[in-house]
Amino acid sequence: MYEQFNFIIEFLGMISFVMSGSFAAMQRRLDPFGVLIIAFVTAVGGGTVRDLLIDVPPFWLNDLWYLYMILAVTLLSMIFKSVETDFKVTLFVFDSFGLGLYTIVGIQKGLNAHLDPIICITLGTITGCFGGILRDILLNRIPLVFRKEIYATACIVGGSMFLFLKEYTSFPYVPIHLFTIFLIVAIRILAVKYEWEIPKFYLPKNER
Amino acid sequence: MYEQFNFIIEFLGMISFVMSGSFAAMQRRLDPFGVLIIAFVTAVGGGTVRDLLIDVPPFWLNDLWYLYMILAVTLLSMIFKSVETDFKVTLFVFDSFGLGLYTIVGIQKGLNAHLDPIICITLGTITGCFGGILRDILLNRIPLVFRKEIYATACIVGGSMFLFLKEYTSFPYVPIHLFTIFLIVAIRILAVKYEWEIPKFYLPKNER
Amino acid sequence: MYEQFNFIIEFLGMISFVMSGSFAAMQRRLDPFGVLIIAFVTAVGGGTVRDLLIDVPPFWLNDLWYLYMILAVTLLSMIFKSVETDFKVTLFVFDSFGLGLYTIVGIQKGLNAHLDPIICITLGTITGCFGGILRDILLNRIPLVFRKEIYATACIVGGSMFLFLKEYTSFPYVPIHLFTIFLIVAIRILAVKYEWEIPKFYLPKNER
Repeated sequence: MYEQFNFIIEFLGMISFVMSGSFAAMQRRLDPFGVLIIAFVTAVGGGTVRDLLIDVPPFWLNDLWYLYMILAVTLLSMIFKSVETDFKVTLFVFDSFGLGLYTIVGIQKGLNAHLDPIICITLGTITGCFGGILRDILLNRIPLVFRKEIYATACIVGGSMFLFLKEYTSFPYVPIHLFTIFLIVAIRILAVKYEWEIPKFYLPKNER
Repeated sequence: MYEQFNFIIEFLGMISFVMSGSFAAMQRRLDPFGVLIIAFVTAVGGGTVRDLLIDVPPFWLNDLWYLYMILAVTLLSMIFKSVETDFKVTLFVFDSFGLGLYTIVGIQKGLNAHLDPIICITLGTITGCFGGILRDILLNRIPLVFRKEIYATACIVGGSMFLFLKEYTSFPYVPIHLFTIFLIVAIRILAVKYEWEIPKFYLPKNER
Repeated sequence: MYEQFNFIIEFLGMISFVMSGSFAAMQRRLDPFGVLIIAFVTAVGGGTVRDLLIDVPPFWLNDLWYLYMILAVTLLSMIFKSVETDFKVTLFVFDSFGLGLYTIVGIQKGLNAHLDPIICITLGTITGCFGGILRDILLNRIPLVFRKEIYATACIVGGSMFLFLKEYTSFPYVPIHLFTIFLIVAIRILAVKYEWEIPKFYLPKNER
């Protein structure tokens, strides 16, 4: 049963990142195959790096479902786009959901491989952030993760909360997952909405 | 016998990408070692990612031939350059041949690993495109693959044709390879020459 | 005993790259978590690619020491920064030391895996250069390695010297390591100080 729940979360994360990737690519006016490739890289980038690091086969290599789903969702997003117009908000919302979902997926896969909690948070952050970083590098955008707003911070805070709840409380499996995913998405969205920033104590006072 | 034929194709692809990498690097006035590194990354980038994904040792790691050949061809391209001048055309032609040859090599390696056809096309596209993407990112150029002209599309079309011919016809091994390589190179060159573009149906009519 | 010596060298290399990564990130005014991520990528990037290529687990995955050390040194560099100001020199010096230390670590790991010397030099160059390349790509800087001054050349020259001394002389283990590390750092620093350049024989005479 947990298997299926994990699969659903990974799946929703993948769809979110396909959407964010294809919208970013359409914004740059790539042709449909270019859009497909950016969507693919955004959706599988983080998980692939994670799987290479822990030496398991990349998750999309032996299960055709993923590729078909990426194809279908990319096509849908193209059709949807010819109606809709506000790129920026759509991209941002899907990117936030992908971030939350993939971070928790990454941590869970680290735990399954019996790795230390702090390594698991690292893997979760890689899984959550890396697809978006690749997308932004390929499209020659300044990576979202390195702009002013809170981004990776959301992964690290949400991931730590996830591990704390798992280790020190007896809440059941599913609510812990849902709550921490929600937490990451909420931090990210609120951070952008209210322009939260972490104080940069290393800058001279007048430059902060 | 097929072994040797595959080796020759991989070899020609490698030489093409070494040429395209070293010409791109010389255009940016890198010093000879910088040129060598860009040539190396362009030539082995796509195949290395493919080999990491299907979990076989990177093809250049246990066979010195590849490294010596990269060294020799890079040196030759530097000497050739001091005579010749038109960077752009040379780079483009070699990049196109590398693309065609490496795509088919990648698909064939996927088939050898008993992967599903659609995964094989993905691997072929990665093998064909990734070296050039790395080259362009490292040199701070807008990746060829993401400019207006048909690029990845050529890989996907040629790769599908390759699998179709293999599966549903009884043409012999070598002609199928040669024909589809030629097809990819031809699509790419004609697309640039005649400025073919795939319609972007998701853009508002006046922006296409 | 050699084990411990190798560990110390890797460790010092890691600290150097953490410093160079966090200083580069602070220069770009990233928030503390952004600084941490850049420091992490710079410190583990080269070694991780090397470990993936020779198919051993990434060195930081099963030994928490590395992550704790990266955390601690990043924090220290932030505190240190709020006192000190000259980014450029600090970044450059630490990057040079990291380059020398990591190159030799990479070659040694290649030798341990019984790979051919020329492949070992390639792995050493990848280990030394790749973290810095990733740092510069993520921060949208022109990679140090591709500017005019001697960079990868230092790795290749120092690495060749290392293998020559190992193979053809009977100097003991530790001095060979220390001398070649010193050699790489010295070449790099002198090259920048005196603006050494390798002649680009492939450029027309008036453009060299």
